[in-house]
Amino acid sequence: MKKSDIVAQMRRKQSCLCVGLDASLEKIPSHLKTEKDPILIFNKRIIDATEPYAVAYKPNVAFYEALGPKGWETLAETLAYIPKDCFTIADAKRGDIGNTAEAYAKAFFDVLDVDSVTLAPYMGADSIQPFLGRLGKWAIVLGLTSNAGSADFQMLTLADGSYVFESVVRQMARLGSPEELMFVVGATRGESIARVRAAAPEHFFLVPGVGAQGGSLEDVIRYGATAEGGVLVNSSRGILYAGSGTDFAQRAETEAKRLQEEMARLFALHGVLQG
Amino acid sequence: MKKSDIVAQMRRKQSCLCVGLDASLEKIPSHLKTEKDPILIFNKRIIDATEPYAVAYKPNVAFYEALGPKGWETLAETLAYIPKDCFTIADAKRGDIGNTAEAYAKAFFDVLDVDSVTLAPYMGADSIQPFLGRLGKWAIVLGLTSNAGSADFQMLTLADGSYVFESVVRQMARLGSPEELMFVVGATRGESIARVRAAAPEHFFLVPGVGAQGGSLEDVIRYGATAEGGVLVNSSRGILYAGSGTDFAQRAETEAKRLQEEMARLFALHGVLQG
Repeated sequence: MKKSDIVAQMRRKQSCLCVGLDASLEKIPSHLKTEKDPILIFNKRIIDATEPYAVAYKPNVAFYEALGPKGWETLAETLAYIPKDCFTIADAKRGDIGNTAEAYAKAFFDVLDVDSVTLAPYMGADSIQPFLGRLGKWAIVLGLTSNAGSADFQMLTLADGSYVFESVVRQMARLGSPEELMFVVGATRGESIARVRAAAPEHFFLVPGVGAQGGSLEDVIRYGATAEGGVLVNSSRGILYAGSGTDFAQRAETEAKRLQEEMARLFALHGVLQG
Repeated sequence: MKKSDIVAQMRRKQSCLCVGLDASLEKIPSHLKTEKDPILIFNKRIIDATEPYAVAYKPNVAFYEALGPKGWETLAETLAYIPKDCFTIADAKRGDIGNTAEAYAKAFFDVLDVDSVTLAPYMGADSIQPFLGRLGKWAIVLGLTSNAGSADFQMLTLADGSYVFESVVRQMARLGSPEELMFVVGATRGESIARVRAAAPEHFFLVPGVGAQGGSLEDVIRYGATAEGGVLVNSSRGILYAGSGTDFAQRAETEAKRLQEEMARLFALHGVLQG
């Protein structure tokens, strides 16, 4: 999906909501567990319920791998069910080089036909390069994450006074254009979001962690968004498990709608995707 | 597999050889392509041929994912075929946090029942922790890689004068004991191997890149090995594609034997696993 299509959909829905499809068998409503493929059924009903409010869907690949070979099929069928005007993200955090990176690009872009894949930058430019240069396909590189461990390496101070994550973002922003590369940016600190935005003024940010992980949607929009959007904000558990009974899809819809309305309000307040 | 079992096998075979099972359909001998599962047949014959000389096998997960859902089954069947006294490594370079990391640990340690999985450290300690504390299961963390892109972030100089990779290795060596954590250490620079060894005196190193990627086996043993072993050295393409005809397995055996003999010679020269 091209950037102009992502932006057009965000403008139309007045939303930057990404729904994280991270369901596990232990957590889905018990009445679904007799289905042949409970996770697939759950995902389909979540997609149906949230589609008016969401612009992107992000299955977390780990949850499907944990189901064994069958999980990989559930992932493929889930992706195939997502409406074509929504942006799809395989949250895989891959990172490897040479022919291995090419194999991952093939697995995600060709076999699964997903729009984008999240990548870890530790191995450097040649681990990201194989995912670039394909119109409508995206590399989403870890920039700054919101977990406690982000302090261990991302926040180390370099000899030039900048943080490691700033060097990562600056170098990666030069490597891939805003038409083909985004950054994962943790949502818990407004000042940190602003630092990443300074290092990459035009690239989209994928922001996990609003909701269950405690980030502030207002900070994300204020410090991360641009006039043409610039952010996708993920919510997983807050939507998936809004309800635990037979009305889970209706509860998920209510929560997605609540988030979209809050996004629309903040868009207007901060001049995002107006006019 | 416990460390003492890995070491015992290395001593018995006088080998630190890990065979990388990274086959792709385009590269295997053409006479196999009519088989129902050509990659599985290829892998089985490579394992049969190299097992007297190898102490570990390392399927690169990307190559199996690139085959679609069926590839995940091929991976599972390949792992099940590896002799029980050999150490198994899922080269997956995963890195995520919280319940996602736990899902990956489940996917690899429980569903695939592999001994170890390679991990990327960018997200910090809490991305590695879920893989620790399980007797006989291992986290193998990227320390220093051998690709050109390793200069982009791993070799950045920190405010305290050390390299980023040294900080990563020191912190991770404190996090996981030498009974549960290894490091991936690129093989191309003797001096760099010595720096990683200084940061982690007792942990095993998994060394990719001897052979096709041009590292020196002598440098790896000289600077990386310890009296009780301390290194696993991977060769993939040099063994898998030693021959391209119907004698590919025999050629693979010859190459594996050549590497093992060279390892035994270097073990004796540098006092590794003697007596």
